[in-house]
Amino acid sequence: MSFTTNAEIAQFGGKLYKLSHDSTSTKTKMEVNVFVPPSTASSIPVLMYLSGLTCTPNNASEKSFLQYFASKFGFAVVFPDTSPRGAGIEGEDELYDFGTGAGFYVDATQEPWLQNYNMYSYVHKELLEKLAGHFSNLDFGKISITGHSMGGYGALAGFLKNPGKYQSVSAFAPICNPLNCAWGEKNFGNYLGAEKSDWYKYDPTCLIKSYTDSYQPDILIHQGAADGFYHKDKYLQPENFAAAAKEAGYKGTIDLNIVDGYDHLYFFISSFVEQHALHHAKALGLVE
Amino acid sequence: MSFTTNAEIAQFGGKLYKLSHDSTSTKTKMEVNVFVPPSTASSIPVLMYLSGLTCTPNNASEKSFLQYFASKFGFAVVFPDTSPRGAGIEGEDELYDFGTGAGFYVDATQEPWLQNYNMYSYVHKELLEKLAGHFSNLDFGKISITGHSMGGYGALAGFLKNPGKYQSVSAFAPICNPLNCAWGEKNFGNYLGAEKSDWYKYDPTCLIKSYTDSYQPDILIHQGAADGFYHKDKYLQPENFAAAAKEAGYKGTIDLNIVDGYDHLYFFISSFVEQHALHHAKALGLVE
Repeated sequence: MSFTTNAEIAQFGGKLYKLSHDSTSTKTKMEVNVFVPPSTASSIPVLMYLSGLTCTPNNASEKSFLQYFASKFGFAVVFPDTSPRGAGIEGEDELYDFGTGAGFYVDATQEPWLQNYNMYSYVHKELLEKLAGHFSNLDFGKISITGHSMGGYGALAGFLKNPGKYQSVSAFAPICNPLNCAWGEKNFGNYLGAEKSDWYKYDPTCLIKSYTDSYQPDILIHQGAADGFYHKDKYLQPENFAAAAKEAGYKGTIDLNIVDGYDHLYFFISSFVEQHALHHAKALGLVE
Repeated sequence: MSFTTNAEIAQFGGKLYKLSHDSTSTKTKMEVNVFVPPSTASSIPVLMYLSGLTCTPNNASEKSFLQYFASKFGFAVVFPDTSPRGAGIEGEDELYDFGTGAGFYVDATQEPWLQNYNMYSYVHKELLEKLAGHFSNLDFGKISITGHSMGGYGALAGFLKNPGKYQSVSAFAPICNPLNCAWGEKNFGNYLGAEKSDWYKYDPTCLIKSYTDSYQPDILIHQGAADGFYHKDKYLQPENFAAAAKEAGYKGTIDLNIVDGYDHLYFFISSFVEQHALHHAKALGLVE
């Protein structure tokens, strides 16, 4: 059995499964939460939700309210972890924004990280393949992706790097141009090395410029105007992403909503999760 | 100024205020969260949500999703704390189910608790009066009450002890007959003393037998069938409350829903909070 079921919790008529498994990508035990809605369909579409810095699979499961809408629209939700945990690498637990809780959804190429910090392959390949083997009623061929902050960046990058894989993408306060901010410099520098051309391969603002696939759906983004990481630190830069999409002639709309008064945290996410759920439910053919 | 505003957080178009103030009932500093919906009404009705053992005002604010429906229907929500904190009484921090986090919504009559552990007067009188002075757009004359577990008991007792004060009442997994369970014996015994006739004054199953007011609205209760405090420990006993209401000829319906598969925690609460919000919105005249 690939997965150990640590908890099976009734919610909104469906079930939230708290699972763990041994990952070949990270060479650690990984936790993942999966919400299965109360659908009678034999083939239930899936939304992947990538979390932000420091989060485990539990934060969004407890605070995003995504499951309410997943239950209503009839899609499953996969909540992966944000890094390997307990890899035993010196320094991995020193900072909140690097190492544990901050895998940055890349495959590391640099020592001492490259053996374990392979969250790109983990979330987009290994995890989905293994879950497809575990949940026979979920359709991992019909999947969309979203995420928050570091996970919003991970969702945008994952969508743009895998044309045809995800039916739709959205993001809450995503790090849109990581190679131009301190979070990106710290993480890309350590995981990927000093060569910036290797950073381009994960940066959404770079990736949309070189995106050539004909499938170019609308991309929904919400950003709180009162989010200090946005207006003060300039870590998020959604305008750079929107400008790059325009410059590149991306056909879909970059539906960027800067929302007054909202901060960076879960109260912000839960306030707009309904719109994101609807965005994906449409793309997944669940509503018109 | 009665209240200090520690945070003002945008959510669902409204605002969640994290406040603190000095309480005359508990003689300690108390924390309280208040959600104000994005209503343009000059007089917004209020729902009081009493939390269960161990909780602060933050747990339900973060995990119940009551605010989504409060925003939709147009009522405010008050989330009080569950006890004084830092009263400095020997033994108050030793147990999860007595003392700090377990004020049990009574006015203590026994040493060493009676100076501080007066959560009954605090939540039903002092707090509401002070909030009415602070929020001029909230109508504390149009108020309903709900709660979870210890807070569900607190809501039922508060409703039955104050005829005409609360327009409606509901509860999630309430402790319905505390004088017949270990939680009630421990807390009533310590706060109120050995005389059981003093316990009757707070026990919902006793109180409904002696309720004589003509206003007898339907009472909505959800109880998870997979909740160990219900089926194993027998701490909750909603059937005793329903039987007492029937025996006493209470005119409203005790709408007791035993829901298969659900446990005692926030995933259970969030799953049924929509129905409770609707129950109160109707009583508060916000929907038909």
